[in-house]
Amino acid sequence: MNEPATAKEAAVAASPLHQLKDELDIVIPTIRNLDFLEMWRPFLQPYHLIIVQDGDPSKTIKVPNGFDYELYNRNDINRILGPKASCISFKDSACRCFGYMVAKDPSGKAINALEQHIKNLLSPSTPFFFNTLYDPFAEGADFVRGYPFSLREGVSTAVSHGLWLNIPDYDAPTQLVKPLERNTRFVDAVLTIPKGTLFPMCGMNLAFDRQLIGPAMYFGLMGEGQPIGRYDDMWAGWCIKVICDHLGLGVKTGLPYIYHSKASNPFVNLRKEYKGIYWQEDIIPFFQQVVLPKDCTTVQKCYIELAKQVKEKLGKIDPYFDKLADAMVTWIQACDGLNPTSASFSNGKTG
Amino acid sequence: MNEPATAKEAAVAASPLHQLKDELDIVIPTIRNLDFLEMWRPFLQPYHLIIVQDGDPSKTIKVPNGFDYELYNRNDINRILGPKASCISFKDSACRCFGYMVAKDPSGKAINALEQHIKNLLSPSTPFFFNTLYDPFAEGADFVRGYPFSLREGVSTAVSHGLWLNIPDYDAPTQLVKPLERNTRFVDAVLTIPKGTLFPMCGMNLAFDRQLIGPAMYFGLMGEGQPIGRYDDMWAGWCIKVICDHLGLGVKTGLPYIYHSKASNPFVNLRKEYKGIYWQEDIIPFFQQVVLPKDCTTVQKCYIELAKQVKEKLGKIDPYFDKLADAMVTWIQACDGLNPTSASFSNGKTG
Repeated sequence: MNEPATAKEAAVAASPLHQLKDELDIVIPTIRNLDFLEMWRPFLQPYHLIIVQDGDPSKTIKVPNGFDYELYNRNDINRILGPKASCISFKDSACRCFGYMVAKDPSGKAINALEQHIKNLLSPSTPFFFNTLYDPFAEGADFVRGYPFSLREGVSTAVSHGLWLNIPDYDAPTQLVKPLERNTRFVDAVLTIPKGTLFPMCGMNLAFDRQLIGPAMYFGLMGEGQPIGRYDDMWAGWCIKVICDHLGLGVKTGLPYIYHSKASNPFVNLRKEYKGIYWQEDIIPFFQQVVLPKDCTTVQKCYIELAKQVKEKLGKIDPYFDKLADAMVTWIQACDGLNPTSASFSNGKTG
Repeated sequence: MNEPATAKEAAVAASPLHQLKDELDIVIPTIRNLDFLEMWRPFLQPYHLIIVQDGDPSKTIKVPNGFDYELYNRNDINRILGPKASCISFKDSACRCFGYMVAKDPSGKAINALEQHIKNLLSPSTPFFFNTLYDPFAEGADFVRGYPFSLREGVSTAVSHGLWLNIPDYDAPTQLVKPLERNTRFVDAVLTIPKGTLFPMCGMNLAFDRQLIGPAMYFGLMGEGQPIGRYDDMWAGWCIKVICDHLGLGVKTGLPYIYHSKASNPFVNLRKEYKGIYWQEDIIPFFQQVVLPKDCTTVQKCYIELAKQVKEKLGKIDPYFDKLADAMVTWIQACDGLNPTSASFSNGKTG
């Protein structure tokens, strides 16, 4: 766009690293000291960190000096949520979603992120028609010939999904078959995942607009005490995509890349994943066919309806899905409990 | 993929520039001498060229020495098709589709193309679920965690849509507003356009499998004597996409890029396009909602059905669409006339 036509475009045109400074939190789930933050200091130090400590709560997690953070361990989660803490997974990256629930600055708004994610979230998405130049709002790009003018305004972006370089995000069978494969292909693009299309959302490089989609960003029941692991982000991805499609919100994937250097153990992963690999053959057709009624006009209503359909249709596969559906409802209750203002978790416009 | 698992994968793994050598034609519509072929000699010389001369048939088009080609001007088209020549546009790039109709080698098979297009066409597409590493069949890539295993075989690829660097493929209004914009972003990716999603197909860097989709690759009635121009490839793109979706075939976009150096005149383009810009606001919803009945099991049947629905639903917009629908039927008759063997234009497998 030559000239910013709307307030949102003007905001995108301004330097993104100074945007959302008081409105964006960085959520970090961890079981170890956070030495890696030294490398990220130039980018992350200005922002507020929410650290979710997984595993043994008696262990002390060291955070490098100079960061503004709050840290929650399992004891804190139990204290804050009481019996509703049952919806937060243990010993699985799924625990990170607790951070999403508490994310807010002192004035009660959602806080901070990195340049490309901020750009992605502040510029519109285009889920209704594919643009062959990819993100039409990127610098030097636009809508190509044949793109309907009525669709060029786009819709609000709810989710920005970044990718990995180096160690790819493969499932255990692929890890086992291709132990040495590394992703070296830097694809310089951001694109909107079209309406009606599901994607595998990875939770490790993800930003989202808490106002728009927060209540659906639940990472399920995974890890310790559950029959499945490593499907936390996938589950959230399927849920948020059908809800975004229903509410007319956008989901982007592509830039920014994060260099991923620690491969997880494929044998351990196989144990965590094998049921998911089997179950996803039913779960994905379920999400591909799910229809949310018209009166589901907020994320919460959509999510409660989705929980109901999960129980009805996926409960047949395994009793685990009954439990998961109940936890989805508990999650919404817990979110509403911690975010009593209607603004904090209701569907609204950013920018 | 570490080891080619199928004959098709093995074919892709072999050097693609030696593949399809006797099965792929290069179709070039032109109104001027073909000096640019000198630059392309290393890549194109081994292949058979089909040159469609637009405009004045008495003008002689010079082709550099050493190329194997056949040239058709308007007189040839009239001679070959007789009254059915009415379905081939005049003074518009839409004339190129005549070349698609005659494309075949002496043994009656479709012939030749360039490395990346060949790779794209010979490797499967994945229209049912988005892969965040883009083409899972590209070197160094695969399906990521959470991609259903049942969908990893993919489907046959019918169309490979390449992109432009430098002068972007903008409509006249965007050309006028951004005369100096150049596309310098090389996006190193090929991706399948998901099922249910339409895209703006540009005809200038396009390859397709004539066996799989040929009869739908009709560029409509455009240019001289018609109320519209520059929508030839868009029209074909909408038609092929809904037919590919219906038949379970794939459409890829992305690599290869072609450097585009001659900008067309935006004022002339505006005159050709303005009705299309207006009409596409109805045409696109039409294609988004079109349903082809189950008994449409071949491309021809799909295309005839589509012509019927175009007449019914778009005829209301302008009498032009009645004429276009008739021309679509004439095109199929002409195709069948020139390709009498059932193999040549029926739906089948490549590879």
